[in-house]
Amino acid sequence: MTARVELLALDGIPEIRPGDDLGAIIAGALRDADIGLREDDVLVVTQKVVSKAEGRVVDLASVSPSPPAAEFAERWGKDPRQVELVLRESAEVLRMADGGLIISRTRQGFVCANAGVDLSNVGGGEVATLLPVDPDASARRLAEGLWELAGVRVPVVISDSFGRPWRNGIVNVAIGVAGLAPLLDLRGRPDAQGRLMRSTVIAVADELASAAELAGGKTDQRPVVVVRGYTTENVKNGPGAAALVMDRAHDLFP
Amino acid sequence: MTARVELLALDGIPEIRPGDDLGAIIAGALRDADIGLREDDVLVVTQKVVSKAEGRVVDLASVSPSPPAAEFAERWGKDPRQVELVLRESAEVLRMADGGLIISRTRQGFVCANAGVDLSNVGGGEVATLLPVDPDASARRLAEGLWELAGVRVPVVISDSFGRPWRNGIVNVAIGVAGLAPLLDLRGRPDAQGRLMRSTVIAVADELASAAELAGGKTDQRPVVVVRGYTTENVKNGPGAAALVMDRAHDLFP
Repeated sequence: MTARVELLALDGIPEIRPGDDLGAIIAGALRDADIGLREDDVLVVTQKVVSKAEGRVVDLASVSPSPPAAEFAERWGKDPRQVELVLRESAEVLRMADGGLIISRTRQGFVCANAGVDLSNVGGGEVATLLPVDPDASARRLAEGLWELAGVRVPVVISDSFGRPWRNGIVNVAIGVAGLAPLLDLRGRPDAQGRLMRSTVIAVADELASAAELAGGKTDQRPVVVVRGYTTENVKNGPGAAALVMDRAHDLFP
Repeated sequence: MTARVELLALDGIPEIRPGDDLGAIIAGALRDADIGLREDDVLVVTQKVVSKAEGRVVDLASVSPSPPAAEFAERWGKDPRQVELVLRESAEVLRMADGGLIISRTRQGFVCANAGVDLSNVGGGEVATLLPVDPDASARRLAEGLWELAGVRVPVVISDSFGRPWRNGIVNVAIGVAGLAPLLDLRGRPDAQGRLMRSTVIAVADELASAAELAGGKTDQRPVVVVRGYTTENVKNGPGAAALVMDRAHDLFP
């Protein structure tokens, strides 16, 4: 027997605007693709469309940079209004680095570059998208909306692309989770040779986000991916992606 | 149209022993599963079976711990012989932390916990497996072996599970790559809204490793996964996973 997981990236998701009903749009795209959701599906949705639907969009023309933001932006050739938003979205700045990179802990608890603030075009205007205020709540709302529309309760993962120390490139990780446990704790279970695993806790929600990126692609043409056949223990009231955020007491790289 | 990627985890890979011809074993498992390799396949293989086949296995009984290794192990209830091997496999120790965790840069350049030294059982004995000496070379050899045996040249990724700062849990990443570019550089290409991407370089080899874990599973029963339908630019003489290792000049978290 072969274990098989499929990654199905939906075409036909239009440009999302503030106030759009993302659940209804996804349900429509599923219908158009003739994909009926199943119990062994997980829906992975990129942060950008969630943020846009939730109106987490700031018209750059409305942003007045503070002097420190303006100075840092000037030094590294960045947009001072973006730097200002990055600082506003940060609970704590870890590094402001050569080249204009800012590594910070966001208000949601994630450590990433530029606090998740992306420059984007919405309806022709130049805007910044911000992370959802509470991505786990966003995932729950989306899961509930799809349950109503599609009749099947599937877990939802909201993904964003993060860099990592020591490794080049970005990978997609989970910033919001509903309906599945983001960590698979195998401690105490035997491995293939019968040895009990002592420290194996797998960040499956992050792996689902990374897997979805392979099918969805980075240019955001396909922001919704159905992961089919990944069997996990679905949970109704799980901890969400907040469980992926390391307690600062364990943080070896402050 | 829906973009579809499949993850096919092979059953029937036996316990691997030093000297085994891993390529021949994988080719046999592919035949048994009636999976003919295709041009749009990527083969993801876990580090542990590669290390075992290559004899990167140390009988713990043969290891004499140095005094510092013995002292650290004693303090945190670790096996002093494992700590000794971790220190030997490390080019530089970054942190020796409460609880007995050692974060180091391995001789291969990867920053990870315990320098990739895993305790394992091989043939009933208690051993440690070490990372392959040159995982990119291991991937190339495996790709060439399979090319000969299966008649198709497919990229090979060797995966291992790494922790990350700031996020709980481990995810699979690529430590060896042959036949594909580990980084997909989208800088200068337009996103869905026509905005040119300025910093988007995706660590696709890491995402392939993470995706494979979802199908293969952590208990190592299925160490080989075929990723089918991920279209990438295959390269004959790529940089390997070495391209994923960040230049220390860019390292913000030494």
